[in-house]
Amino acid sequence: MSAYRIVGMETHDIRFPTSLELDGSDAMNPDPDYSAAYVVLKTDDGFEGHGFAFTIGRGNDVQTTAIKALEPYVIGRDAEDLGGLYKEMVWDSQLRWLGPEKGVMHMAISAVVNALWDLKAKREGKPLWLLLGEMTPEQIVDLVDFRYLSDAMTREDALRILRKGAEGKAERIAHLKEHGYPAYTTSPGWLGYGDDKLRRLCKEALDDGFEQIKLKVGADLDDDIRRFKVAREVCGPDFPIAIDANQRWDVGAAIRWVNALAEFAPHWVEEPTSPDDVLGHATIARAIAPIRVATGEHVQNRMIFKQMLQAGSLSFLQLDSARVGGVNENIAILLLAARFGVPVCPHAGGVGLCELVQHLSMFDYVAVTGTMEGRVIEYVDHLHEHFEDPVVIEHGRYTAPTRPGFSSEMRRESIAAHSFPDGEVWRNQ
Amino acid sequence: MSAYRIVGMETHDIRFPTSLELDGSDAMNPDPDYSAAYVVLKTDDGFEGHGFAFTIGRGNDVQTTAIKALEPYVIGRDAEDLGGLYKEMVWDSQLRWLGPEKGVMHMAISAVVNALWDLKAKREGKPLWLLLGEMTPEQIVDLVDFRYLSDAMTREDALRILRKGAEGKAERIAHLKEHGYPAYTTSPGWLGYGDDKLRRLCKEALDDGFEQIKLKVGADLDDDIRRFKVAREVCGPDFPIAIDANQRWDVGAAIRWVNALAEFAPHWVEEPTSPDDVLGHATIARAIAPIRVATGEHVQNRMIFKQMLQAGSLSFLQLDSARVGGVNENIAILLLAARFGVPVCPHAGGVGLCELVQHLSMFDYVAVTGTMEGRVIEYVDHLHEHFEDPVVIEHGRYTAPTRPGFSSEMRRESIAAHSFPDGEVWRNQ
Repeated sequence: MSAYRIVGMETHDIRFPTSLELDGSDAMNPDPDYSAAYVVLKTDDGFEGHGFAFTIGRGNDVQTTAIKALEPYVIGRDAEDLGGLYKEMVWDSQLRWLGPEKGVMHMAISAVVNALWDLKAKREGKPLWLLLGEMTPEQIVDLVDFRYLSDAMTREDALRILRKGAEGKAERIAHLKEHGYPAYTTSPGWLGYGDDKLRRLCKEALDDGFEQIKLKVGADLDDDIRRFKVAREVCGPDFPIAIDANQRWDVGAAIRWVNALAEFAPHWVEEPTSPDDVLGHATIARAIAPIRVATGEHVQNRMIFKQMLQAGSLSFLQLDSARVGGVNENIAILLLAARFGVPVCPHAGGVGLCELVQHLSMFDYVAVTGTMEGRVIEYVDHLHEHFEDPVVIEHGRYTAPTRPGFSSEMRRESIAAHSFPDGEVWRNQ
Repeated sequence: MSAYRIVGMETHDIRFPTSLELDGSDAMNPDPDYSAAYVVLKTDDGFEGHGFAFTIGRGNDVQTTAIKALEPYVIGRDAEDLGGLYKEMVWDSQLRWLGPEKGVMHMAISAVVNALWDLKAKREGKPLWLLLGEMTPEQIVDLVDFRYLSDAMTREDALRILRKGAEGKAERIAHLKEHGYPAYTTSPGWLGYGDDKLRRLCKEALDDGFEQIKLKVGADLDDDIRRFKVAREVCGPDFPIAIDANQRWDVGAAIRWVNALAEFAPHWVEEPTSPDDVLGHATIARAIAPIRVATGEHVQNRMIFKQMLQAGSLSFLQLDSARVGGVNENIAILLLAARFGVPVCPHAGGVGLCELVQHLSMFDYVAVTGTMEGRVIEYVDHLHEHFEDPVVIEHGRYTAPTRPGFSSEMRRESIAAHSFPDGEVWRNQ
């Protein structure tokens, strides 16, 4: 590849009025307006890379401003060395004070890093999962920031994992292209839905071939018992049904509530308490066993994941494609999970998170763990129509993307219509 | 007090070109421009409340935008119920996605909450430490958000601490007014200073009556040994000299480096690794004992402090006045520290952090722990001249503020001159 430079950055504050339908309602987020703080990077040879941070409405303007603040870090830059450029943004000493490596500024870095990867994959003519999957172990570890990880995983440890993971790569690429990657669906389980809608959507999930569903819980225990009973009636006693509390409980309340739902055999309980509470999650995990804990969508960075793995806080690691520092930090997290033998079952939904995260799970299968066993990617069936390369679900599985890029590009008409507050969708509210 | 409403909000992006002098240089922050994302709240009865988030330069615009985003949450509001208003901002479901309770958005809430407290204290005609110190235990616990804390401290636990802490309050208020609160100084220890300047400043610190100094370390071990030797020569073998690595090391490196400096008997080692690494700090603490760990200036919220106390990660808790969610969350942190019997030795320096944090330590002495033993407030001797009610240090101690408010108000001329990028200080760079 010839060298290329970033010569322009656009940002957009894009919001979807999802609160009107109670799509996405849960115990902590009663009325989200799914949003994207969106960035487009342009090169001197005519390519565009798209990325975004996902938010749920208010504050999307702050998130967009934070992305804009990164413009001087990328304009004029050779965008080939994505390990170096990622670390420069994360380790800028002045910006670092705003985190470090957490919250708005880190999500902004995530958006820009992901846009750089979209760009690179498009220029190389490959879907991101395949581009990453075909890299050598040495190339991959150069993308990772091992700072603060060495008590759990060194660069050499990661190289060993990747060298082992490289065996049989070609067969797995072929398998993935033919069979895709298993998905589960959260669509039936939003708190705002009535029992009839729940029953109908559970039935549809089974008919569509999903291997697992998830119910939101945590607002009212009697409601949760009733809804779980409805879901069990439709899905049968052995079908995996996970529950998700979205950080609703303190440690003691989590233990009591989950144990009160134990008769329904939840496949996992997700986000039982604060995403910052490594030790709290570990206490809960011990107290509710054999029910297992899943968490990660709000985990801020690799240091918290490292500790959750060290402490036994989780049995399923739910990385998010757009909260930690983009593809680079997610590679570190996939490697940490592999080192501790914990399956990654990514968070998705929102706006475009399914589109992004499928690439990371597929890379994990091709080049890191080499297995899909016990692994599923979350799937939520909305807002995909706004993307140029939307996810394709067949028989309850994500089909491997074939178009070059990170599947992160939103349609220009959608960007225009949902721009806040001047797009037509908002002018007409 | 009659009811009053917030009717206006001003924000300012204020930056001081401190990088020109290498003031504030450490192993991670070689060239900070100390900055404040600044907010002024105005009431319908003519009062102003001032608050700010401290940053070190780039990104201060993002931080200021985040504060501005809180305008709809305070305008038109009765600002008497500061427990309620604080929780509303923290628990806004949409904004919460940007943290939760961490980074830029949480620091913005901190700035606004602190401005509300400045306002309240001014209207009641008392310095904040005294206003808080005279509240009843019941009033104080109503300010605190106990969510996610109950496995370590319930509301009832906090009430017990405060009821015990209320005994002898009047004597302690009188003592504080007469004797002030002990300070230590970081002024000698910045990495960018040469040995002669270090020697001179150590001497000055002793002459000024400070009870402790602190040296920045972590960039180069040989330099650190040489500088520590210089400081010991001036200060003598028994004088408390702390060291501060500003998150420079991984866990293993921290243990090796600190042990290599053990012969100089550091009073504490501060921020040895990532502020997010509760378990890493605990590992370090065990491996370097009897040298003790101090941390907190970058700890994002009460959940991380809770875990650090549970895990034995620290022996000195260094809360920061403007990073967590303002006065309210800092009261929670003071209570947690009291519950675990860990002394609070606050972080200060920067822009106005000394001015703010003295009130919190004095409140702790008056109404929570009732002791100054083993406790010191950090002091750095710069930028105080920009404040209307600057800290007064006498014989190495903070004098108790007497003016109404939170000492957070910057002089109008200073705000104008240092506004970025149009103030005269920046136009002339």
